[in-house]
Amino acid sequence: MAKTTPLSGFPELLPEQRFVEQQVIDTLRATFELHGFAGIETRAVEPLDQLLRKGDTSKEVYLLRRLHEESAEGHAGLGLHFDLTVPFARYVLENAGRLDFPFRRYQIQKVWRGERPQEGRFREFAQADIDIIGRDVLPFHHDVEVTRVMVDALSRLDFLPGFRLQVNNRKLIQGFYAGLGIAAGDQVDEVMRLVDKLDKLPPAKVHELLLADAGIDPATADRVLALATIRSTDTSFVDAVRGLGVEHPLLDEGLAELAELVGSCAGLVTDRVRVEADLSIARGLDYYTGTVFETRLDGYESLGSICSGGRYDALASDGRSTYPGVGISLGVSRVVVPLLARTGLTADRKVPSAVLVALADEASRGAGDEVATALRARGVPCEVAASAQKFGKQIRNAERRGIPYVWFTQDGDDAPRHQVKDIRSGDQVDADPATWTPPTEDLRPQVVSSSSTSKESTQ
Amino acid sequence: MAKTTPLSGFPELLPEQRFVEQQVIDTLRATFELHGFAGIETRAVEPLDQLLRKGDTSKEVYLLRRLHEESAEGHAGLGLHFDLTVPFARYVLENAGRLDFPFRRYQIQKVWRGERPQEGRFREFAQADIDIIGRDVLPFHHDVEVTRVMVDALSRLDFLPGFRLQVNNRKLIQGFYAGLGIAAGDQVDEVMRLVDKLDKLPPAKVHELLLADAGIDPATADRVLALATIRSTDTSFVDAVRGLGVEHPLLDEGLAELAELVGSCAGLVTDRVRVEADLSIARGLDYYTGTVFETRLDGYESLGSICSGGRYDALASDGRSTYPGVGISLGVSRVVVPLLARTGLTADRKVPSAVLVALADEASRGAGDEVATALRARGVPCEVAASAQKFGKQIRNAERRGIPYVWFTQDGDDAPRHQVKDIRSGDQVDADPATWTPPTEDLRPQVVSSSSTSKESTQ
Repeated sequence: MAKTTPLSGFPELLPEQRFVEQQVIDTLRATFELHGFAGIETRAVEPLDQLLRKGDTSKEVYLLRRLHEESAEGHAGLGLHFDLTVPFARYVLENAGRLDFPFRRYQIQKVWRGERPQEGRFREFAQADIDIIGRDVLPFHHDVEVTRVMVDALSRLDFLPGFRLQVNNRKLIQGFYAGLGIAAGDQVDEVMRLVDKLDKLPPAKVHELLLADAGIDPATADRVLALATIRSTDTSFVDAVRGLGVEHPLLDEGLAELAELVGSCAGLVTDRVRVEADLSIARGLDYYTGTVFETRLDGYESLGSICSGGRYDALASDGRSTYPGVGISLGVSRVVVPLLARTGLTADRKVPSAVLVALADEASRGAGDEVATALRARGVPCEVAASAQKFGKQIRNAERRGIPYVWFTQDGDDAPRHQVKDIRSGDQVDADPATWTPPTEDLRPQVVSSSSTSKESTQ
Repeated sequence: MAKTTPLSGFPELLPEQRFVEQQVIDTLRATFELHGFAGIETRAVEPLDQLLRKGDTSKEVYLLRRLHEESAEGHAGLGLHFDLTVPFARYVLENAGRLDFPFRRYQIQKVWRGERPQEGRFREFAQADIDIIGRDVLPFHHDVEVTRVMVDALSRLDFLPGFRLQVNNRKLIQGFYAGLGIAAGDQVDEVMRLVDKLDKLPPAKVHELLLADAGIDPATADRVLALATIRSTDTSFVDAVRGLGVEHPLLDEGLAELAELVGSCAGLVTDRVRVEADLSIARGLDYYTGTVFETRLDGYESLGSICSGGRYDALASDGRSTYPGVGISLGVSRVVVPLLARTGLTADRKVPSAVLVALADEASRGAGDEVATALRARGVPCEVAASAQKFGKQIRNAERRGIPYVWFTQDGDDAPRHQVKDIRSGDQVDADPATWTPPTEDLRPQVVSSSSTSKESTQ
């Protein structure tokens, strides 16, 4: 095999970087399970017609074709999934008779999108999704639940920067627009599409487009833009919206839901993980019908939303029942890969081993294996030296890879004499392979920051 | 979304089945890390020329094409990986300057093959690989090491049937053939290919083919077949081979290596996980150069080898260095999916929750959330009832999903009165959300067998 070069958009990590990603995934999984979410996986492929029925057609789908297939038309019309929501809806329909509703699941898998690669945008990346799906009905308190679960999960990722969850409600937007006389359907969609451009275009330009493209009058456009500038970390947004003087039953419903969501999270937020009502958030033309989420990573705002989702009432239906759901999806690779690149976040060792069992000579490898077996029996990760070099070389080999302890065995008068050296302090003490255990914090690698470069400087 | 049907060859699991697969993966990962193996992942795609350079071209590769791509020629010649060895060799070459050798890694990922689906053969499946790669040299004791690690891992999977690791050595076979005067290269390859058919064809038929296709004489064919029938769980195979009267330095080397491997595993084997020298194992035309492994699952012999690998000395080279390796790969899906189907192996609950927090009415949801938060703070997975139905219904809801405990909170004189009910025994006791913890075995779901159908009857 000749030397090859990396593929743009398909990030791969060194072992000490993968450890950081694995810590993120393990923490997410543990939190999701603490909240009663069951883990599932779906196949990587879906029929093309399923993949293309989602509103946002800009996501580029990878088609599959078998090498030995005669036709170039694609393998029975299969493509790689580009998210985990569409496959999950399909999974629920396929297994509805064998699931209990409301069904809580988490799913942590790779997805693929044929996008132009850029920072935080990859062609292959890992996502972590939680969703709750009901049969026919799904009370609003589950919208609160998924938010609280994700806030809990992000809070436990304490080696990452802070997160700002921005929440809104499509009923609130659509009720407000209806109260303004904007026509349901195409006109509302067009207004939402244009308001979504506020993070890229100045308000005056969006105002202009609202008149030209959506065909609304200047006073209505003023109030549309006024709504989109409202944000608050408490329920004060309700009065701000009321102050705009628009009335509609759907607006009332949306305001009540969003107020309940923000209020119910008040006890969980910290300086690191905040929840705020942001009335500019609409999630484009997606399938959301109520609550919508986006999330910004502190210091990495240029990545856009790294954790998004919302309530979808009509994604899945089998004719007899509909399956309303609410969910949120964290872009694991979108967060981890830029952080690794920009801050040098890494593990403090390159291997899981807490102990290197040194060898005096090759003939003592069997004895070394016995020491290692005894340590592993008590959960101490370790390895036996690859070769019986001089002890100084074996110690430096451990040091280079961040292994904190080296174990030595020497012939004694009656029995072998065992000693363990902490190569950080240099302390060397007698130890028994059947009982010695390192301090808990030395058992597993730890996430550390190898440097602290300026956060926005290395784009 | 309309109802869809499953895709043949792309297995998906129910949550309680996925739990079993996850237990297998977690156990493998924990064991690999105890032995100092670092986890990595490689991208799912490789350039087509890399995928096609492996000897065995019968594996059908899935090509990728972007939907919006003009050409149907495939996306820059990319395909989905069909194993984890070829990608790992590429990863080592790409990152050689940043890795420490010998480099131990494990990798647990999905792979894809466009094969005809059948029991234990899927188009998408998970593999768990361990490999050790050296720079320029890799001493033989690492062959022993990967074997011992896999035996340890399989031993810890104690809810699975037993395993029989069959080991051989290509030097032994090639040295034996050279001693018999079979020409190195095409003739040896052809003999090995025909001997590999012994598990499908009777020996007399293989003997016939050895004469007709490989062009060897009857006496030589007799000895080739005699070698392939030798097997032993100890080092007695050495005398059996010597008894065939063939001499060659490469044969001596292979015999010594295989004897060391079998001898070094003697202390680890149990009734459930055995290691045996089986001189019929050759691993076809693969890239192996020394030790070769195959593994049979007790009672599931029709699945073929579910854990295979060996020593490869020449898979990766960048011109300056070669990177010899030894590794072994467990077909996780190949083992788990047939077991789930045939034995009803499952989890004893459908959700991670150990506790369902019951609600007297919807107004007490906030108080229920507080109980749940207190339990989760001590690592107790739990969920709050989805609706405040009658307590009997809430209990049956927990029971149906296998949740062992239900928590009740009632108004008390001064403070709320908390009680927890073990719904298996019916015992209900006072409990404090800040201190109560279930027995450790109730914290997580357990793998159980829901039925014990005849193992070979449901093919």
